[in-house]
Amino acid sequence: MNQLTHDPVADGKMRRNKVDLPLNVNIVEVGPRDGLQNTAENLETDKKITLIKSLVAAGVKEIEATSFVHPKWIPNLADAEEVMRAVSDLPVTMFALIPNEVGYNRAKEAGVDGVTLVMSVTDGHNLKNLNRDTRASIKETIHLLHKALRDQIQVRVSLSVAFGCPFQGNVHLDEVVQIIDQLVENGATRMGLCDTIGVANPRQVKEWMKVITTMHPDVLFELHFHNTYGRGLANVFAGLESGIHYFDASIGGLGGCPYAPNASGNVATEDVLNMMSEMGVETNIDETKMLEITQTLFQHLEIDVDSQVYKVKKESNL
Amino acid sequence: MNQLTHDPVADGKMRRNKVDLPLNVNIVEVGPRDGLQNTAENLETDKKITLIKSLVAAGVKEIEATSFVHPKWIPNLADAEEVMRAVSDLPVTMFALIPNEVGYNRAKEAGVDGVTLVMSVTDGHNLKNLNRDTRASIKETIHLLHKALRDQIQVRVSLSVAFGCPFQGNVHLDEVVQIIDQLVENGATRMGLCDTIGVANPRQVKEWMKVITTMHPDVLFELHFHNTYGRGLANVFAGLESGIHYFDASIGGLGGCPYAPNASGNVATEDVLNMMSEMGVETNIDETKMLEITQTLFQHLEIDVDSQVYKVKKESNL
Repeated sequence: MNQLTHDPVADGKMRRNKVDLPLNVNIVEVGPRDGLQNTAENLETDKKITLIKSLVAAGVKEIEATSFVHPKWIPNLADAEEVMRAVSDLPVTMFALIPNEVGYNRAKEAGVDGVTLVMSVTDGHNLKNLNRDTRASIKETIHLLHKALRDQIQVRVSLSVAFGCPFQGNVHLDEVVQIIDQLVENGATRMGLCDTIGVANPRQVKEWMKVITTMHPDVLFELHFHNTYGRGLANVFAGLESGIHYFDASIGGLGGCPYAPNASGNVATEDVLNMMSEMGVETNIDETKMLEITQTLFQHLEIDVDSQVYKVKKESNL
Repeated sequence: MNQLTHDPVADGKMRRNKVDLPLNVNIVEVGPRDGLQNTAENLETDKKITLIKSLVAAGVKEIEATSFVHPKWIPNLADAEEVMRAVSDLPVTMFALIPNEVGYNRAKEAGVDGVTLVMSVTDGHNLKNLNRDTRASIKETIHLLHKALRDQIQVRVSLSVAFGCPFQGNVHLDEVVQIIDQLVENGATRMGLCDTIGVANPRQVKEWMKVITTMHPDVLFELHFHNTYGRGLANVFAGLESGIHYFDASIGGLGGCPYAPNASGNVATEDVLNMMSEMGVETNIDETKMLEITQTLFQHLEIDVDSQVYKVKKESNL
């Protein structure tokens, strides 16, 4: 899984400290879900579909296109069926976030390629977000996982507040490992650790991911960071150093933090892409096209882009 | 020099991948110089002095308080003498940036504790910034270094555009090493590598700093990052991983990039402090006091704070 890369930055004769990073990474674009679920201005359905098609044209291979949560909770994504039906035939993997069985059935009906089954690692956040404790969530997640396996729908299990929780505070590695163990024993092969409130630090990421990947070498682990405290890219780098090569990111940094309304949201796809290309790590996504998509999208949303790379490039007219 | 730290994040029995970082780091606050030299609103002299005194009260041990550049080039810092005279007796090390011998003499007269001798690693940036080529700058830097040694004034030599240049583009490690070699041979014991335009990436930082520190184990190396492309803290972490434990930072992220006027400036002191404390790395600086200083300062300047930590904490009333 962890291919090692060539070395574009160190000079030949002085190359005594090669940092081994994955050769290729996969960026899962979650802007259409994690981003658009929170915006004040609800993007029209046809614009969401155009956005997703543009992302595919730019080279994105996996997209979290929407969420099949009850519209009462997330009115912005009430058009989940319509969006999914319009994009599920595109030649990439279209994921949708699924909170429960009703959502699963809706997603399957709409032709989803993969489901993101979400639960929190703490009871506090789980109760608030999904109205059940962690134990019940594990049971439900395993149930849906088995359904999806039968239905030949891909599954990634996403663990919210994996690095820190707004209610519990610190999260301990053994709490996370216990949940991962149970899910893996029951068939999970792809799991994401999500720093939902942006409190992770790169030391923690590197120490934890090495432990976790060593315990479960056959599981595909992915990371989802928010830039709340400015550490988004530092955490991505720490993940890379641990051999992780799947990362969620959101176009233009779309998507906030419900516990700090004006804070930064998801780590911006443009910023991740630029850091990767500067480090010689291949993403196979066209950076210039992504910046153009951002420009169009944020003009519709009438909000400021939260990507550092976008801010710089825009001044040089992209 | 590189003490290794305890491990606050990995849990006891799972501690199989300890990331060794320095136990303590020194943050050199460069806001009063690198930040205030660029602001549209020129802070009044007495407010600059109050700012510097507050930074000392918060625990900052080294401050770049001003620059003895000709006021024609940086009118904001025309009060360099007045500022330095008012703060040089404080019980911390007050540095000033020095571009040439005239500046050196002014700084010495004003009672400076230490001088930051600055030159660029590329001819292009050197010619633009200091109106001479790299070769001439090395000669001048060595000349001033020797003067300062005789005058018992501390010296840090700062290499601008060390990781990338707006004129030349890529900078090669051997170009940087050649300059470091010459300066060290001539007495430099403390040297900073400055990512003036924010283009460094963490892989490059880690690979380069390991090479450089291995070649010159007795030199104190420090790093100066800008957050232009969002990689400021990622680069700080990469530096830490290489054993570097001196970092420049600027309060509130003050200080821009002359080549991208709306881009982010220096890595924000608050963001560096918060990442350090989350990782168990001691700075001995009071984070809460720093946030209060930021709030007061930016109210005077009437600009937005460019620190992620500040934005989050402000919503919870600091």
